[in-house]
Amino acid sequence: MRKWVILLTLMPNTGLALAGDPSGIETLRHNPGLPVDYIWVLVCAFLVMFMQAGFAMLEAGFCRSKNVANLIAKNLIDYVLASLVFFVFGYALMVGNDWKGILGRSGWMMLGDAYDVGKYLQLFWMTVFCGTAATIVSGAVAERLKFGAYLLYTLIVSSLIYPICGHWIWGGGWLAKLPFEVGAVDFAGSGVVHALGGLVGLAGAYVLGPRYGKYRNGAPQAIPGHSLALAGLGVFILWFGWFGFNAGSTYTAQHLRISVIAVNTNLAAAAGGLSALLACLFKTRRWDVGLGLNGVISGLVAITAPCAWVEGWASVLIGAVAGVLMYQSVRWLEERGIDDPVGAVSVHGICGLWGILSVGIFADGTYGLYSCDPPFVKGLLYGGGFGQLISQSVYAVVLFIWALGTGLLMFKLMDRAFGIRVNPEVEIKGLDVSEHHISAYPEFSTKGIL
Amino acid sequence: MRKWVILLTLMPNTGLALAGDPSGIETLRHNPGLPVDYIWVLVCAFLVMFMQAGFAMLEAGFCRSKNVANLIAKNLIDYVLASLVFFVFGYALMVGNDWKGILGRSGWMMLGDAYDVGKYLQLFWMTVFCGTAATIVSGAVAERLKFGAYLLYTLIVSSLIYPICGHWIWGGGWLAKLPFEVGAVDFAGSGVVHALGGLVGLAGAYVLGPRYGKYRNGAPQAIPGHSLALAGLGVFILWFGWFGFNAGSTYTAQHLRISVIAVNTNLAAAAGGLSALLACLFKTRRWDVGLGLNGVISGLVAITAPCAWVEGWASVLIGAVAGVLMYQSVRWLEERGIDDPVGAVSVHGICGLWGILSVGIFADGTYGLYSCDPPFVKGLLYGGGFGQLISQSVYAVVLFIWALGTGLLMFKLMDRAFGIRVNPEVEIKGLDVSEHHISAYPEFSTKGIL
Amino acid sequence: MRKWVILLTLMPNTGLALAGDPSGIETLRHNPGLPVDYIWVLVCAFLVMFMQAGFAMLEAGFCRSKNVANLIAKNLIDYVLASLVFFVFGYALMVGNDWKGILGRSGWMMLGDAYDVGKYLQLFWMTVFCGTAATIVSGAVAERLKFGAYLLYTLIVSSLIYPICGHWIWGGGWLAKLPFEVGAVDFAGSGVVHALGGLVGLAGAYVLGPRYGKYRNGAPQAIPGHSLALAGLGVFILWFGWFGFNAGSTYTAQHLRISVIAVNTNLAAAAGGLSALLACLFKTRRWDVGLGLNGVISGLVAITAPCAWVEGWASVLIGAVAGVLMYQSVRWLEERGIDDPVGAVSVHGICGLWGILSVGIFADGTYGLYSCDPPFVKGLLYGGGFGQLISQSVYAVVLFIWALGTGLLMFKLMDRAFGIRVNPEVEIKGLDVSEHHISAYPEFSTKGIL
Repeated sequence: MRKWVILLTLMPNTGLALAGDPSGIETLRHNPGLPVDYIWVLVCAFLVMFMQAGFAMLEAGFCRSKNVANLIAKNLIDYVLASLVFFVFGYALMVGNDWKGILGRSGWMMLGDAYDVGKYLQLFWMTVFCGTAATIVSGAVAERLKFGAYLLYTLIVSSLIYPICGHWIWGGGWLAKLPFEVGAVDFAGSGVVHALGGLVGLAGAYVLGPRYGKYRNGAPQAIPGHSLALAGLGVFILWFGWFGFNAGSTYTAQHLRISVIAVNTNLAAAAGGLSALLACLFKTRRWDVGLGLNGVISGLVAITAPCAWVEGWASVLIGAVAGVLMYQSVRWLEERGIDDPVGAVSVHGICGLWGILSVGIFADGTYGLYSCDPPFVKGLLYGGGFGQLISQSVYAVVLFIWALGTGLLMFKLMDRAFGIRVNPEVEIKGLDVSEHHISAYPEFSTKGIL
Repeated sequence: MRKWVILLTLMPNTGLALAGDPSGIETLRHNPGLPVDYIWVLVCAFLVMFMQAGFAMLEAGFCRSKNVANLIAKNLIDYVLASLVFFVFGYALMVGNDWKGILGRSGWMMLGDAYDVGKYLQLFWMTVFCGTAATIVSGAVAERLKFGAYLLYTLIVSSLIYPICGHWIWGGGWLAKLPFEVGAVDFAGSGVVHALGGLVGLAGAYVLGPRYGKYRNGAPQAIPGHSLALAGLGVFILWFGWFGFNAGSTYTAQHLRISVIAVNTNLAAAAGGLSALLACLFKTRRWDVGLGLNGVISGLVAITAPCAWVEGWASVLIGAVAGVLMYQSVRWLEERGIDDPVGAVSVHGICGLWGILSVGIFADGTYGLYSCDPPFVKGLLYGGGFGQLISQSVYAVVLFIWALGTGLLMFKLMDRAFGIRVNPEVEIKGLDVSEHHISAYPEFSTKGIL
Repeated sequence: MRKWVILLTLMPNTGLALAGDPSGIETLRHNPGLPVDYIWVLVCAFLVMFMQAGFAMLEAGFCRSKNVANLIAKNLIDYVLASLVFFVFGYALMVGNDWKGILGRSGWMMLGDAYDVGKYLQLFWMTVFCGTAATIVSGAVAERLKFGAYLLYTLIVSSLIYPICGHWIWGGGWLAKLPFEVGAVDFAGSGVVHALGGLVGLAGAYVLGPRYGKYRNGAPQAIPGHSLALAGLGVFILWFGWFGFNAGSTYTAQHLRISVIAVNTNLAAAAGGLSALLACLFKTRRWDVGLGLNGVISGLVAITAPCAWVEGWASVLIGAVAGVLMYQSVRWLEERGIDDPVGAVSVHGICGLWGILSVGIFADGTYGLYSCDPPFVKGLLYGGGFGQLISQSVYAVVLFIWALGTGLLMFKLMDRAFGIRVNPEVEIKGLDVSEHHISAYPEFSTKGIL
């Protein structure tokens, strides 16, 4: 028989975990209350995985019909690759036995002591998060990136850019240990998942340049998506899945705080949707459905970091600010020649950074670091002083530099090496026919747009 | 530190609850078994929230492509507003400290002692139910109601019509205390959620009048929906989400009766779908897919009130009757000049009333009032006499008057004040282009229908 | 009052169960830890039910727009019928009191002692599985089978072909008692659900013959589906629901092994998608999106039998082999004149058989028969010898003969009796208009394909 090695997992609230227990008998014996935690984490992980469907529908709906097969393929393959990569070495790098505080070095392919119910649970949770980070990029580089380049960057994001940065904030790394208040914190990943994905997307959109026809005489043109029904479906799926993303990040069912997290998630989404709609109504006198949809996602992105540490009214405020920020950011980027077909940079990048900072302002000191016990996280408005806000600001700046820097390096190098953008004829004809020899809607008559 | 105030929540089966416990530490100490209840209620609430996607797809699929963006916007915004309204004052009105038995008056914005894990859980559950009631109306008034009028009535339904009536039946109000048997009961809301939504929709459809082209020489014309694929998807999503709606209404996982509730829900849906298909086959010699889809929803609506108190065979019967009722009601309303584009009045209104009444007939005396203990709910067929049926009938009549009355008042007043119907050119052109300056499917060539 | 009868249910891990306890009070008293098991099984069952939406979208997306209403109707009605049939007599046949080891004979309509929380839970779980088996067939016979014939075969599959074979492997029947190692095993149903559905589908596709226009001068023609967006959505929904299918098959939350099952499910899906894409890329130099989608389902089908008994790396291998197998099988069948519009035979039939066999090779001896205790299931590679592989091979052969045999008999007899295929004009015009007098997309201009 194996021997039972007692280890502390990196996710602090999983408590004591055994390694090398593939049947779970010993783990259960040491903690008979675990089943409720396991099913909570698993169900939440299923919901997070289902967000892949939401991203696929949202991106497909916001893009043109000639690129839908390509987008479906990309959204499928990024989750496929993230799943495999994280199993083979992502997990080992992120939470394996530490090597000089920089990387982990054990658990490759989940062999040996990593063949364990607790470690498999952790792998599953990490995999669905990594898949989310990878898939966010796809919206910003849609309708013009080569499929091969997509495969390559997905591998790089999943295996290096995401897990290394994840180690800093969630793996006990240096950001988590900043000497201001409790250090930088990010409950469910406004930063390391969403801002990272959005900012790598910004690098991609910048290197690629705008789509053919996006600018006429320097003025940005609206390129409407081919199906608002699919985009709407995508947003509802994402909203649904996000409850798993945030409330499951307690990584236990023993914190009744999960109810507050669910409410905060819902409120910020609603507030983001409403504020984006109103911001646009105020400027343009019309109810822009697409902005309402993206506003909901913006609110969700922003509340992801603070969801466990704030009150309901603060969630409304955080979401509302996110909706307006997103609206302004979309216009600002567009005017500067950045073409982001689905708004991923603004929604995930900008609102992700706002979410990180908001912790330093609104955290109310009632909940700890993935724990009901002190140290509680406390922000400016609750007498916590500037300490937490400083930690969060450092985190935001580091993330901005890391994601944009590695993203630019990656896309630039790939572009020099083999060219990441399809040629103009392919782009005009659509990536579906040219890259996949297929049409997503072979029977419907379409009016080409641009 | 706060002091821990012990309160009885209005939902009887949550048992002892503490107020003012935002971290949940004290609440958990008093009831270490709560995590399983919390995750059950939360997961079920997530499913109910996801029903928004189902309603959006069903309504969009059953309407014409020229109004799809508008429908998506409406289905998004009603849940957005319900979420915010219920947080700001709906919760306080419905379950705050009682004022003369009419309304609650505490917990505004969930501040003070309402910042509590138990109260947030309750708010979340109530919010997703309120969102459902509000969204049901949208189908009946589709394709001709102004967007501004939609926003206003959503606010009124979410903040007054729904929570006040909800107080009567679920908040310990007078309907729950009727002196016949155990008083009026409604397990998961056939009445206060579905019939209310459907009947307010009837008021709206009546005040609005039929869509342009619905009647030719007095004879109703079929106006086919633009996508049966989306409508079918919507029905499957609703069926899926309804398991949360009904089984989660135990508000605890400690009643193993949840398995019976899930089976009953499934059986009634199946029976409703089949009976509607067969009723139509019998009359018209054809298999009408749309009726089959609406039949499933009819069965689900009808079983929502009795789901916890009846046996499987009764669920089949209740669902089967609902399917036929819906089919007859659709034809009856259509012949009387009521144009209900998606059948919401028949599906939710009529079958909701049937669901309420069915409790008084089929309740079998094995399960209590949100409790495994007596008093058990017992109907006519199980020797309970006419008492329960009388209570349920009073409830049905009151609900009919309340929903239709307040609905008519609201829509009539709004119509006088600013006109709730778009003008004919807008209607013919489609609400998407005229109200939102957008097309839901800008690339697809469409044949205008009517 | 009823008397409490103590029974052993057939699913071994539910442990002690009471019969005739409709409120669940007594059952809970005997096992206070049951709530967590109940909610796990219920939530997983909800997910399995939701797979119906996935199948509907996948099949609709892979077929032509002229048959979409028909496909939606079929996918709805098969689950409707399976739900009702299993309630009325499927349950009694499958797990009622045994009659000479062949069939059960009690629990008709869940009356008497079958009105019990534990038995209703079991019924629900069995119903959603039966619905899956029935719905798989529909893809193989799509676009040319009469609706009436569909209803009839659905009844036969749900009430006889599936439950009888289910009894052999899951009901304590003779396959489960094969004298080699632990007997034939199938954790969540690669065989009895998927291979059975796929092989009955093969019989149907064979008896029906290819669609009009599928072969020109003997060479198979590609008939593209009408919407890759819907097909993609369907695959994501199926992937999501499959976590419930596999991990819920522990039928308890007390086995922490559920985390391993979830990971294995995810890995095999990813590996199947990637290997199918690569196999096709290698042959045809293009990224075939549809094959990637079907590859994911192939991996999921294959891992369904072994998911609880293998390690992660084996899951990757099992999934990867499935993807390639599916690709080869699709070509092989097509060349032999079998026209399977969505690839159901290859995906479910062939990969289902592979899944069964793989248990005999890769089972690693760490988990038992729906139990954490011995006897553990051990395959060839882990020193278990050929015993398990022999059991699995017998199971595969029996299943092949049973499913194909009964399928051929059923479809042949039906074909002789009344003709199961629509006439050529109906087929060319589309089943929607001819069989349902409706068009799924009445507004969109379509180019007829074939």
